[in-house]
Amino acid sequence: MAAIDNPYYSHEFHGDYDLVSIGRLDLEEGGSIPDCHLAVATFGTLSEAKDNAIFVSTWYSGTHQIFREQYIGEGHALDPSKYFIVIIDQIGNGLSTSPHNANGANAALSMSAFPKVRIGDDVVAQERLLREHFGIETLQLVTGGSMGAQQTYEWAVRFPDKVKRAAPIAGTAQNTDHDFLYVRVLMEAITSDPGFHGGEYTSNAEVQAGLERHARIWGVMGFSTEFWKQKVYTGLGFEDMDAFLAGFLQPYFTAMDPNDLLAMMWKWQRGDVARHTGGDLAAALGRITAKTFVLPIDEDMFFPIRDHVTEQAHIKGSELRVINDVLGHLGLFAVNPDYMPQIDAQLKELLDTPVS
Amino acid sequence: MAAIDNPYYSHEFHGDYDLVSIGRLDLEEGGSIPDCHLAVATFGTLSEAKDNAIFVSTWYSGTHQIFREQYIGEGHALDPSKYFIVIIDQIGNGLSTSPHNANGANAALSMSAFPKVRIGDDVVAQERLLREHFGIETLQLVTGGSMGAQQTYEWAVRFPDKVKRAAPIAGTAQNTDHDFLYVRVLMEAITSDPGFHGGEYTSNAEVQAGLERHARIWGVMGFSTEFWKQKVYTGLGFEDMDAFLAGFLQPYFTAMDPNDLLAMMWKWQRGDVARHTGGDLAAALGRITAKTFVLPIDEDMFFPIRDHVTEQAHIKGSELRVINDVLGHLGLFAVNPDYMPQIDAQLKELLDTPVS
Repeated sequence: MAAIDNPYYSHEFHGDYDLVSIGRLDLEEGGSIPDCHLAVATFGTLSEAKDNAIFVSTWYSGTHQIFREQYIGEGHALDPSKYFIVIIDQIGNGLSTSPHNANGANAALSMSAFPKVRIGDDVVAQERLLREHFGIETLQLVTGGSMGAQQTYEWAVRFPDKVKRAAPIAGTAQNTDHDFLYVRVLMEAITSDPGFHGGEYTSNAEVQAGLERHARIWGVMGFSTEFWKQKVYTGLGFEDMDAFLAGFLQPYFTAMDPNDLLAMMWKWQRGDVARHTGGDLAAALGRITAKTFVLPIDEDMFFPIRDHVTEQAHIKGSELRVINDVLGHLGLFAVNPDYMPQIDAQLKELLDTPVS
Repeated sequence: MAAIDNPYYSHEFHGDYDLVSIGRLDLEEGGSIPDCHLAVATFGTLSEAKDNAIFVSTWYSGTHQIFREQYIGEGHALDPSKYFIVIIDQIGNGLSTSPHNANGANAALSMSAFPKVRIGDDVVAQERLLREHFGIETLQLVTGGSMGAQQTYEWAVRFPDKVKRAAPIAGTAQNTDHDFLYVRVLMEAITSDPGFHGGEYTSNAEVQAGLERHARIWGVMGFSTEFWKQKVYTGLGFEDMDAFLAGFLQPYFTAMDPNDLLAMMWKWQRGDVARHTGGDLAAALGRITAKTFVLPIDEDMFFPIRDHVTEQAHIKGSELRVINDVLGHLGLFAVNPDYMPQIDAQLKELLDTPVS
């Protein structure tokens, strides 16, 4: 029995996926998850030589499902007729072990007792699962957006021998102070709701007001000023800004579990590959041997292009490839018809680039 | 006796100013302020011909004091040895008639009972005061930043014959949807605080948590991402982001009255000169006869340059003059030593431009 039975985190909304236990996961910040489960969705067939695997990680509030719906398929760069594509949901995202579903051996970690998990913990867990469950030792590509970009960088720095190519989209290797503050503001929208009760609510519905405020803050920063100016949402069938908020952004987030969102946000705030090199970001990025395309979105308000540029300069042989999307950061949802063709073109070129 | 005795709104923090009654002010949204008082600070001497007056309006949370400290003086474009400079504090800013100080004839408007006031009401009140109290019928320049830019546009559209020159800084004539949402998020940080009690708190200290959250949201949007990246605050004597928030941004806003801030925010959300022309923005801006310099700040995250560009195109003979400041919108505080020289250069050139 889940600590909280939230129907959003089910096959109904997230299609087929497996829950795979990787056993005990010791955490960077101390403590451990006694029986860490990761939700895994795969596409395509692993070759006998196990040399056609691609790994995709998930972003804040996201799961594997958006990749299934938008990023993966014949005609896309992430083509399951050619590659074995594995998506592992990040810890805390509500499908993998998370505050709201910690039960059984993890029951002591339920709700507000959930431990602090870092990007590095996710990547350690993902590497173990890929190796022990699938026998995968080499990845043709690691990619992901936003927090998925954080995980992509962590993979490329921590396991350089395993990552042939890397494509971080709209996210940085070292989280910025501005992003830390932005995420703090998002967290406070939730935790300030009296219904949050220090994380010991009995249903996410009790925190609805806070979750709605959190959604509206995403409305300010997640899309670009130009998205609102051009009323892009009318093309998505919404009459005005309020209809778009009420019909899309608010219900998207209010379905979710507050503690789960907070666990991901704490992790997001502290994404930083320089932990491996005593704070030296250039040295950490210098460890990357993967052929890397850095893919910012031009209208992103909190992962701006220039923050990607300064990091990309430290990655040997890397290239900056800017994605144009008036949606800004939430262009990642791939609702703009011009978005996926750009992503596909970049990932295809990257996958077609020979590497040693 | 004030409805709430908040020591921030006093001469101790705002220097010399006069409170001038303009009598009853009927409001655009209906209702009226029975005895509207406006706080007025003046600099310099009005010429006998009354032809050397400059009018400056105030921004959200601001008063005349920032202009006294940073913008006005010999060597500045706003030179009191040459011009008679009048600053009128906007209604709701805590010095002019505002929710927290509504008493006497205005007692029925106290706190949550304060009526909805629009930018147009301010400008009507300001014009009356300048005419009746000082006998001023012509302004050599109207200027202001942010909500002060909204008032500047309102002046230039509503009283084209009275405004010789206009210099809106970091603000638009028609508020955008994105800004509306941003302000909504700011408002909700305050109103969601249980201590707010629907506006019927007995001290702003009861709403401190909400005011602090509101301050941190300003931290996300008020400065640029690059401000945080470059740790510009260290030049202001703060060690890190938290010290800057705790030592500057939070105390700045927690001293203020929540209802006063909300009154200004409601007004900000609805700034729109197209009310005069049935929603036709181009037609409204086409009424402007003032020689106009439009002055966006390049790193502004919510009044971006391009929003100024689209409006400037409709103003006859106007010029776009971009101010460069890594501080972004809050560059208006003029703490960057490169800021005032740019503003002064633009305003001097504008004041030196002959007009009919």
